[in-house]
Amino acid sequence: MSVNGQWRLCARPTGMVDESHFEYVEEPPPKAGEGEVVVRNLYISFDPAMRGWLNDVKSYVPPVQIGEVMRASAVGQVVETRHPDYQEGELVTGMFGWQQYARVGEAGLPLFRVPKETPPHHMLSVFGATGLTAYFGVLEVGRLCEGDAVLVSGAAGATGSVAAQIARVKGASKVVGIAGGERKCNWLLKEAELDGVIDYKSENLRQRLREEFPRGINFFFDNVGGETLDTALLSMANHGSVVLCGAISQYNENRPPPGPRNIMQVVIRRLTVRGFIVIDYLDQSERALAELGQWVRDGRIAHAEDIQEGIEKAPRTLMRLFQGENLGKQLLKVADPL
Amino acid sequence: MSVNGQWRLCARPTGMVDESHFEYVEEPPPKAGEGEVVVRNLYISFDPAMRGWLNDVKSYVPPVQIGEVMRASAVGQVVETRHPDYQEGELVTGMFGWQQYARVGEAGLPLFRVPKETPPHHMLSVFGATGLTAYFGVLEVGRLCEGDAVLVSGAAGATGSVAAQIARVKGASKVVGIAGGERKCNWLLKEAELDGVIDYKSENLRQRLREEFPRGINFFFDNVGGETLDTALLSMANHGSVVLCGAISQYNENRPPPGPRNIMQVVIRRLTVRGFIVIDYLDQSERALAELGQWVRDGRIAHAEDIQEGIEKAPRTLMRLFQGENLGKQLLKVADPL
Repeated sequence: MSVNGQWRLCARPTGMVDESHFEYVEEPPPKAGEGEVVVRNLYISFDPAMRGWLNDVKSYVPPVQIGEVMRASAVGQVVETRHPDYQEGELVTGMFGWQQYARVGEAGLPLFRVPKETPPHHMLSVFGATGLTAYFGVLEVGRLCEGDAVLVSGAAGATGSVAAQIARVKGASKVVGIAGGERKCNWLLKEAELDGVIDYKSENLRQRLREEFPRGINFFFDNVGGETLDTALLSMANHGSVVLCGAISQYNENRPPPGPRNIMQVVIRRLTVRGFIVIDYLDQSERALAELGQWVRDGRIAHAEDIQEGIEKAPRTLMRLFQGENLGKQLLKVADPL
Repeated sequence: MSVNGQWRLCARPTGMVDESHFEYVEEPPPKAGEGEVVVRNLYISFDPAMRGWLNDVKSYVPPVQIGEVMRASAVGQVVETRHPDYQEGELVTGMFGWQQYARVGEAGLPLFRVPKETPPHHMLSVFGATGLTAYFGVLEVGRLCEGDAVLVSGAAGATGSVAAQIARVKGASKVVGIAGGERKCNWLLKEAELDGVIDYKSENLRQRLREEFPRGINFFFDNVGGETLDTALLSMANHGSVVLCGAISQYNENRPPPGPRNIMQVVIRRLTVRGFIVIDYLDQSERALAELGQWVRDGRIAHAEDIQEGIEKAPRTLMRLFQGENLGKQLLKVADPL
């Protein structure tokens, strides 16, 4: 515990984010003040939404400021405590950022404890924000109905892969995922047991949607936006539901690109399009985690993680998301527990 | 009853519709077959959605075919009957088309009767499809809540003007209408008693929305689409509701123009965007008409009609909608009742 390596935002990206927008700094590890704890990061979570936090615009969270350690959720181990609720050695999750050690005071408390049987990195994936996003997006926001024909874009991503499988478990008549490349498509068929996959890199989406959904899509869970959303609108069934979870194809554009040309399909086909942010549902997360946990234990939901290693790789790990390199949850391992 | 003047579709418009896409034909008036009636049109209804019926694409109704009499709803008088349910002289509404006389057989029955006290043309406006569209759009599709801050685009149109006033009657905290030109804006303030108006022809919409809705729009009823929708998305309050009723700014485009750049606001602000077609709600129209009728009788809802005259003006009357010339419902008077 001699040094705290950390990445700070040093320039706002206007297009694709890369390493030049962050600065690597080493400083002495923090000390806990009264009522504070110091956490040593083990795994850091990477999510497409982090790109939005770099823009200087009003949103559901304030933008990361120039000079601040990059914001990120992580799982870590308490290494110093001056707070009665936390013991040294405990594994906890919180917004610990792109650094090796985080000092957590009142604003960052309470911390969420990692249950005994749970591998700590699962707290950032299937039992973390992406798993909960999938759960609430499918069941609360979109209100999936038994028998729905379901399409999920970004289906090999951390959220999409769980969303697609929740739809399967909850009685969708068919679940088709869109992903890029053979490796991801194979995983979706064999491990996640979807009914169909569309490889957007090698197949014609419009035509494949027509084949897979001759009677239309009842439920579309969209993580991609852009052309994918636009094309899917043409295959929606009347009274269908579109859940806008994210739009990874758009986040690195300099300014918002044009939206879906086919938006009139929302009228003609009487669609409901809903956006959401998972933080609105966190008061219900106990129930969600119990159900997700059961499905994982029963082997009904497969989940994948792409684990990179070393704090020095943080910016490059973020970029993996936008280059479509990750299968499942993108994580960075920073240390082993003591 | 010597001749039946009628307008038939003779060419599909690819951009702005005009008189050249229709052909005026005179033929002998129709005779009623067994089980049929002949109706003499009194007033013909004009709606922006008719432009969509001219495109050769799958939609909620089949396209009008080349050579067919242009489809339109109308109110008329039964002048010949060979059906036991209809008497000569009765006033009725139905899809009678752009013509002086319509022969109505099984496919067009039953006809809706005009109640005794109701001026026949009101059956096409406040008590017709546009009034019902406003009613169900505000109350069933968008589920307006008491206290909502409401924006209506196309607010001086047949649907928008009624929608805005229903919102006022049902307890919106504020109702602001967008319309083009002083005459319409004055009518909205003085006759429809809205709380505010924005003249899109002379004012900056983005800035005016910021002024009118410092805490955001809770409910947006959109008849216009395009830039209006895109700009309004930037002023929505969290968890707001957008009802897509139509997109008059887009109907005469050669191909669908790009959609809203700001569609990510649907995610960030957790919006619900719903489209609808009024025909899905017609089984509830008795209740809606009773309530609308009460509001009109009580003077709580003002409604305007722009009545042109003469069957020869049908195509030009349609064009008035897209040139923004109508204040309230666009009608064409074809004959007086006998």
